[in-house]
Amino acid sequence: MDWRARLEEYLRPRRAHVDKALEKYLFYNLPSPRILPDAMRYATLSAGKRLRPILCIAAAEATGGEAEQVLPTACALELIHAFSLVHDDLPAMDNDHLRRGQPTVWVKYGEAMAILAGDALFARAFELIAEQARYSPPERVVQTLRLIAEASGVHGMCSGQVEDILNEGQAVSEATLRFIHTHKTGALIRASVLSSALLMDADEPALSALDAYSRALGLAFQITDDILDETAPTEQIGKPAGSDRAQRKATYTALFGVETARAHAQQALQDALNALQGFDERAEPLRWLARYAVEREK
Amino acid sequence: MDWRARLEEYLRPRRAHVDKALEKYLFYNLPSPRILPDAMRYATLSAGKRLRPILCIAAAEATGGEAEQVLPTACALELIHAFSLVHDDLPAMDNDHLRRGQPTVWVKYGEAMAILAGDALFARAFELIAEQARYSPPERVVQTLRLIAEASGVHGMCSGQVEDILNEGQAVSEATLRFIHTHKTGALIRASVLSSALLMDADEPALSALDAYSRALGLAFQITDDILDETAPTEQIGKPAGSDRAQRKATYTALFGVETARAHAQQALQDALNALQGFDERAEPLRWLARYAVEREK
Repeated sequence: MDWRARLEEYLRPRRAHVDKALEKYLFYNLPSPRILPDAMRYATLSAGKRLRPILCIAAAEATGGEAEQVLPTACALELIHAFSLVHDDLPAMDNDHLRRGQPTVWVKYGEAMAILAGDALFARAFELIAEQARYSPPERVVQTLRLIAEASGVHGMCSGQVEDILNEGQAVSEATLRFIHTHKTGALIRASVLSSALLMDADEPALSALDAYSRALGLAFQITDDILDETAPTEQIGKPAGSDRAQRKATYTALFGVETARAHAQQALQDALNALQGFDERAEPLRWLARYAVEREK
Repeated sequence: MDWRARLEEYLRPRRAHVDKALEKYLFYNLPSPRILPDAMRYATLSAGKRLRPILCIAAAEATGGEAEQVLPTACALELIHAFSLVHDDLPAMDNDHLRRGQPTVWVKYGEAMAILAGDALFARAFELIAEQARYSPPERVVQTLRLIAEASGVHGMCSGQVEDILNEGQAVSEATLRFIHTHKTGALIRASVLSSALLMDADEPALSALDAYSRALGLAFQITDDILDETAPTEQIGKPAGSDRAQRKATYTALFGVETARAHAQQALQDALNALQGFDERAEPLRWLARYAVEREK
């Protein structure tokens, strides 16, 4: 069985596990107002790779734990990802109408509700981090809280999106492009891997190796996203092909061309695999995920 | 010396303490992008009552602690308040141009930056809650995290703002008005008081008394805000007089008239004072703050 089939077999039960937990965590039996939880669920429960929760679970397994032990944090990471997409899609930001082939939250529920649904998803994520204390020592939960909050704010996602917006429609340097991606998407991917390592009380060499792995993985994903945006048909990626280029957003393909971008993605994959050399077979899913980052078709 | 003078004497050093801490917590020595921390500071460091941090400090003192022991959490509460104002002022929400007599964040920095500055302030607040673990046992920090996150999301601020927007321009029932205010502003005021009580490891009767105090206080503040919006001149409240009424927002004065609203505010003050009967003189500042809620002029 090749790595793709083994990864698929690995992902199926874990995605189902995460989806069931997300469904539970986003169920609100409230008299009013229904529209807010509805918009939060719409933003989160539709199709999605569940990459961040899966990375969180795979890193827990690689460091001797199992999915159940990190589930609240895994789901918190997905809610933060969903929150960032809802806000990024807004008219004042990227003005996107489609996401995963469906109307974006602001198109379906209006701008005000999209802003508030994003805010409420972000708040819910931090409730789930508190919930993690059912499974982990509170001092580990506090370290995880700090890691994830930092990855979401000025030292992570928010600054990445600001820099992206400031450079829209301009040619950017490689340094700026790297800044955008290590912050906008890389920081939360890194936090997804490292939060489990913290919760599992991994030792310093393991933390450091997973840090290197997660940085290479984030880069591999982003370069491949840019390549797919340039080359894959609309129905495959759920948004119009070349839409990032059409908006003249900073991309690796705009900077280097498709072929050089592919070579960079392969290098990032090698870096990710090298970082995991000290890990045993329990880290195989992390290795498959790195391959998947580069060799997927959507 | 009457309570007003004693409150003023109480507030001066504590506001300075909070302002200095906020300045420190919002200082970022980053190469780029400067605009994000600038917008965050603009949203937070301009004039403000610092009500939530002061309540957090006063509740710590009433339960045997002191300001220094709860400062990160006190500042986190102010950042969450600032975040909520930045988002509420957006064109898609309340479309406010002035706040405390100054251009709102979106007017000064643009809509995209206002959305992101709000998000980044919210993220920074949770970093500060993690920072609280320098002063408090981590299990207490995790309880505080849960309390504050819940007060910010579906069970608090976000639902209050949703209900407010859904009812804009309509006559509302007293039940709806109470829902809006207990969620939109009441929940975070309650969390400001109770977070300290949790961090100070207050016993169950004290927690329950402070819960009742904080609910009555939140009501007193909101009713008085509505009265001032109706009756105070623009230069006193920093926004055009009657602007909430002009937008036909749900207010206590619209529902009951100014005189009955004043009687309700007085009743809320009595409820707040009654809740504190079991506390000694260290709770005096909480009592002055309740009086201030109702008897202030802006």
